[in-house]
Amino acid sequence: MSFLPQGVVTLLTDLGLKDPFVGIMKGLMISRFQQVRIVDLCHGVPAHDITWASYALAGSFRNFPPGSVHCVVVDPGAGHDHSILVGERDGHVFVAPDNGLLTHVLSDGGEARVVDLDRVPVAPVRRTFHNRDIIAPLGALLASGKLALEDVGEVCDNPVVLAPHPTTCTPTSVEGVVVGEDRFGNLFTSISESDLPETEGEGFVVELSGHCIPLMASYGQALPGKVLALFNVFGLLEVAIRNGSASEQLEWERGCSVVVRAVTD
Amino acid sequence: MSFLPQGVVTLLTDLGLKDPFVGIMKGLMISRFQQVRIVDLCHGVPAHDITWASYALAGSFRNFPPGSVHCVVVDPGAGHDHSILVGERDGHVFVAPDNGLLTHVLSDGGEARVVDLDRVPVAPVRRTFHNRDIIAPLGALLASGKLALEDVGEVCDNPVVLAPHPTTCTPTSVEGVVVGEDRFGNLFTSISESDLPETEGEGFVVELSGHCIPLMASYGQALPGKVLALFNVFGLLEVAIRNGSASEQLEWERGCSVVVRAVTD
Amino acid sequence: MSFLPQGVVTLLTDLGLKDPFVGIMKGLMISRFQQVRIVDLCHGVPAHDITWASYALAGSFRNFPPGSVHCVVVDPGAGHDHSILVGERDGHVFVAPDNGLLTHVLSDGGEARVVDLDRVPVAPVRRTFHNRDIIAPLGALLASGKLALEDVGEVCDNPVVLAPHPTTCTPTSVEGVVVGEDRFGNLFTSISESDLPETEGEGFVVELSGHCIPLMASYGQALPGKVLALFNVFGLLEVAIRNGSASEQLEWERGCSVVVRAVTD
Repeated sequence: MSFLPQGVVTLLTDLGLKDPFVGIMKGLMISRFQQVRIVDLCHGVPAHDITWASYALAGSFRNFPPGSVHCVVVDPGAGHDHSILVGERDGHVFVAPDNGLLTHVLSDGGEARVVDLDRVPVAPVRRTFHNRDIIAPLGALLASGKLALEDVGEVCDNPVVLAPHPTTCTPTSVEGVVVGEDRFGNLFTSISESDLPETEGEGFVVELSGHCIPLMASYGQALPGKVLALFNVFGLLEVAIRNGSASEQLEWERGCSVVVRAVTD
Repeated sequence: MSFLPQGVVTLLTDLGLKDPFVGIMKGLMISRFQQVRIVDLCHGVPAHDITWASYALAGSFRNFPPGSVHCVVVDPGAGHDHSILVGERDGHVFVAPDNGLLTHVLSDGGEARVVDLDRVPVAPVRRTFHNRDIIAPLGALLASGKLALEDVGEVCDNPVVLAPHPTTCTPTSVEGVVVGEDRFGNLFTSISESDLPETEGEGFVVELSGHCIPLMASYGQALPGKVLALFNVFGLLEVAIRNGSASEQLEWERGCSVVVRAVTD
Repeated sequence: MSFLPQGVVTLLTDLGLKDPFVGIMKGLMISRFQQVRIVDLCHGVPAHDITWASYALAGSFRNFPPGSVHCVVVDPGAGHDHSILVGERDGHVFVAPDNGLLTHVLSDGGEARVVDLDRVPVAPVRRTFHNRDIIAPLGALLASGKLALEDVGEVCDNPVVLAPHPTTCTPTSVEGVVVGEDRFGNLFTSISESDLPETEGEGFVVELSGHCIPLMASYGQALPGKVLALFNVFGLLEVAIRNGSASEQLEWERGCSVVVRAVTD
């Protein structure tokens, strides 16, 4: 499916909502394309956490109509260490620094171009803020159809990709890591449903810091206060406590091991 | 007044803004109805606090034009314990789990229908997320006029309602409870202006955890640092400290008693 | 440049996003002008911090197209101590309480009018909430073109202005104060680039609580963990720690002194 712009731009950033940074990006977009439809995907990415954002982006973008443009700003170097990429996948377009943010979106398909700043009609660039000066207006121009995908620059042969998580598979198990937590204290991991081994067994259990946790279909299957695992809104394995906070009640840290094991007996 | 859809959908949830959950709901809505006008009522409902949300919804919705659709997602069971209701009141429509969220909106009027999932054209339902899979696209379809109110399901005779707060009235007083606090540390209660006794007296005082607090018309009537009570933006009695935080400086907990007493002498 | 309404209203408030206050303002605006385009500048102004908001507004509004209306609600007295102003500057319009919020927007140009509540067609006013009852619908009406700037009231000769920060200049230095911090713990100050002395020197250093900090062009010029100063998104001097939090690692308080000194040797 090729990209047909629909006027929609989503924003995924670690800029937070305390300051006017996101509002300024929106002003720059409206200044370029008055009819742009801006949707906040979210601005609560943990500061500088490229891994979290890459998983969240890949798990979210298909809820928007094809033809959407997704702008991502998570950039510890504030634009100095990296070029800007424009990626395409299944009719969606992504604008982000070339620092690994598009790893999971482009992991098994799609294509990226490196933005050539001499070719795109974006504002004169203040040195400190590539993000607002380039990514926001560029996203608006792409969403408007005024700027064609092919005109932003050449195809990128080697975009920066995050080191793959240690998803080691045995015939009956798969190992991943905890990526982060959500507002309810649910822990989400690097393991997706398709990573699970095919077995003739009786289902799966999940191991996290010494706990052996049942894999269920929904929160409602666990009793209040009990630990469970399920596949979440991103399609990723999540460890939760029904009506409680797994983040507070379990021992974990970002990157710690999670194993899903088939119950074969 | 009957419902005439205006393309407006508001969102009231406990999903917070840290994660992309709200953004995903918006994507699902735009995918169904490209012109939908989405307004965040707020996403800061305390996690799982149905009472807080029911009061906030009833106190807020009339600020929007009739014909608006108000989607509410506060659902400790994540959609497993409850059907979904579509309520109507004074030309406004509400989509929410049948868990008490519509208690105050429908308390003295209006009507609710139980959504029949075999009748409404919403996406195939992932078992874990009724919220995003049903409430968001359903709200968008109702706002678009593509789905009529009568077609979502049969009228519900016994929607879940919250236990009434102990609003005990004497000829000269009324008792309620503290429902919650706002961003400024103001405490809002279950008592509305119409609950007050009619008296020939000299005004009212409010009693909360041993304090005797003057009921005033506005924040500006109290000196900085002083405790006051007033009727707030929801039309509910609120205890505040001018330029300070009642939440931090008074003893209180959710559900604790508040009494308004006429000054008769 | 005179004001030509474009249907765009931005909101800058200290109301936060925990409660429905901002959502209610949006409902009031849509009720007045259905096509209004509302953009959140931000709602995270520190509670009651007029100085912070005045700097943020002046540093942000030019990112929006001329013809935008900017509504500002930061009002410790909740509307009782002050009239409401409608300011104009370079084709932008501002609606705010007359409590100093427009100080930096109007500091060297522009004009303000005092809203005459007998002249503007806004809703009957609840005594407690000037903000939502007047500023929001007034902004929507101005953005719609239904209400002309000249019709809101007479020109204000003496709007409230904040006491000027102690920006003392010597031939080789300028002194200002820390205004606040952002989500990343960067500290922003009252000093703008144009305040800097013209020198033949070798650049500038910034002094803050005993530290001598290099003034750089961008975050990327500092090593991770190192303190640097730069001019930020508002055009104001900022003290930051690359990939860290200056707020947590330096001694500072709101209003503390910052000096920029030319390196002349």
